[in-house]
Amino acid sequence: VNLAVVGVGLIGGSVGLAARERLGATVRGHDPAAGDRPVRAGAADTMAATLEQAVVDADAAFVCVPVGALETTVRAVLAAAPPGCVVTDVGSVKRPVVAAIGDERFVGGHPLAGAEASGVEHARGDLFAQATWYLTPTAATSGILLERLHRLLAGLGARPVALDAVDHDRVMAAVSHLPHVVANVLAGQAVRALEPGPAVGGPPTRLPRIGPSFRDATRVAGAHPALWREIYAANADALVAALDDAVARLQEARAHVAAGDLEALGAWQAQAAEDRRRLLDAALPGGAQAELRLAVPNRPGVVAELALTLGRAGVNIADLALAPSPDATTGEVALWVPAERAAEAAALVAPLALGPVRT
Amino acid sequence: VNLAVVGVGLIGGSVGLAARERLGATVRGHDPAAGDRPVRAGAADTMAATLEQAVVDADAAFVCVPVGALETTVRAVLAAAPPGCVVTDVGSVKRPVVAAIGDERFVGGHPLAGAEASGVEHARGDLFAQATWYLTPTAATSGILLERLHRLLAGLGARPVALDAVDHDRVMAAVSHLPHVVANVLAGQAVRALEPGPAVGGPPTRLPRIGPSFRDATRVAGAHPALWREIYAANADALVAALDDAVARLQEARAHVAAGDLEALGAWQAQAAEDRRRLLDAALPGGAQAELRLAVPNRPGVVAELALTLGRAGVNIADLALAPSPDATTGEVALWVPAERAAEAAALVAPLALGPVRT
Repeated sequence: VNLAVVGVGLIGGSVGLAARERLGATVRGHDPAAGDRPVRAGAADTMAATLEQAVVDADAAFVCVPVGALETTVRAVLAAAPPGCVVTDVGSVKRPVVAAIGDERFVGGHPLAGAEASGVEHARGDLFAQATWYLTPTAATSGILLERLHRLLAGLGARPVALDAVDHDRVMAAVSHLPHVVANVLAGQAVRALEPGPAVGGPPTRLPRIGPSFRDATRVAGAHPALWREIYAANADALVAALDDAVARLQEARAHVAAGDLEALGAWQAQAAEDRRRLLDAALPGGAQAELRLAVPNRPGVVAELALTLGRAGVNIADLALAPSPDATTGEVALWVPAERAAEAAALVAPLALGPVRT
Repeated sequence: VNLAVVGVGLIGGSVGLAARERLGATVRGHDPAAGDRPVRAGAADTMAATLEQAVVDADAAFVCVPVGALETTVRAVLAAAPPGCVVTDVGSVKRPVVAAIGDERFVGGHPLAGAEASGVEHARGDLFAQATWYLTPTAATSGILLERLHRLLAGLGARPVALDAVDHDRVMAAVSHLPHVVANVLAGQAVRALEPGPAVGGPPTRLPRIGPSFRDATRVAGAHPALWREIYAANADALVAALDDAVARLQEARAHVAAGDLEALGAWQAQAAEDRRRLLDAALPGGAQAELRLAVPNRPGVVAELALTLGRAGVNIADLALAPSPDATTGEVALWVPAERAAEAAALVAPLALGPVRT
């Protein structure tokens, strides 16, 4: 399999490493700023001088550039890539690029993986092992190319999960973008609280040691300003809604604190404990897989619809295989889902099936 | 040295363990709910049936009860303790108890140490090693008893830092109480964002795996509801101010996001990076110590004033020794401070000295 990786930093480099190590892929990179470092790091077989040369014979192309450059770069890759090449990206905001690109070969993507370090020198072949990798197909997406990408990502060790681009951006606003904004605010408040006030007898002029829980809460403060300003701006709608919600919840908490309402404060704290428990439970690794098989009409969007139906219900598709019928009017789909959710998954996909769903 | 520990859970138990292991102290505990578990855990030599029996011959008494029970318990301990016994507490909010208790034997205290687990079974003799331990003396505090407590805490391995109770509570609001409130809000928003919306095509009905940075940001969400509701309520003034500040800063960030102002977002993110760097620098361990010696008038509050002057400037007092003159009108104080700040510290304490400050 021939892979093109456009933008060979931490993520692009890790795609290249994993694809070469796990799939025996041939990886052609393109990144004018990287020189031959990707080749030396083992992340690419060769580096192409132009984007066109990188993608000319690719089966799949990964666009791994900052969010602000996504749309332009994806367009250029689609223009240069052959008809059967699936093109994806790894940006952490999906709605703008997905809305801008209508091409059936494009599937928005976002691996939940990364590191504080950046650059191909820190790339790792196991960066995506067991990591959720969101895909945001649309009705326009080619089912065959979505299937190819899904299997490719599973081959890199990731767990692909299909999600509507708008839902994706809302989820990311809640679990990533808002926490980054909040970490910035906490770091700034701590510095101000700990530095000299205007009055005599103000706080200390040097910062005392801070505890580990504060370090945890502010670990992401100020991360990569050049990248993050683009992420905030690209996800403005969902992030503004999340910020408004956060402000409203802080004001609720403020009211309980100001009133000294122990009962309300205790109930609120207990609810947070329950919320945290649910989030941690959700992070537990999965167990046995079951296979579902069903026949579907061979029309555009049907595989995307299947993936989205299960993704929306939180059913993780560990693997997916598509076999068109000889006359190309129907297709047989095989899906691997967590065994304990197989019955539920079968019921969810039944409306899309031409016959019974076999488990 | 005879120590009384009233309330023998994680913190009280760790005080007992450290005092027995490091100082060879005799520890008498009192905690009706603990049975003989503190003795079995090595945290107390004996358990007293009443608070009075625990403190009757103590040189120092540690009140290690929840914030809501502090004032009542400290009063009872002071009523039962001998005249020369220094009484301190370990509550994470200081202004209310310090304002309520005027006794010269009482010094408010707060070790920056703890763990997710609670109970004497999780107590550790090294819990306070290198930990900042805030003390909040007032002008009413006995210098001799403050000195004794300071040396005792240093003997437990901690780094005592004097701070005005109001400053302490403001600092804690910023680095601990506000981050707890914010963690609760983030956990709640994530659960809501990830659970089914009212409309078809809403978000997934199961939570996807969350990343490590979100787990870090919400690690303290919902911590010990029974304890934390009292902490929030006890520090209401400072916490409400911190919440109002947080809301104002979030609204600033919201304006930049809504406007898509890349320049402002980049500058704001870069400022957060700088804030975080300063907080981390402040958390670096200290180096060589230098000794300062000075004579002070032997009047109430002078040792507290010294400690507060240096604490306010962020100069950590690693050790402190007080030697009254034979006629008790003056005292000689020795202070150990970080070598690189010795000159600055000498200048700060000079106005309190009867003669030159020797370094």
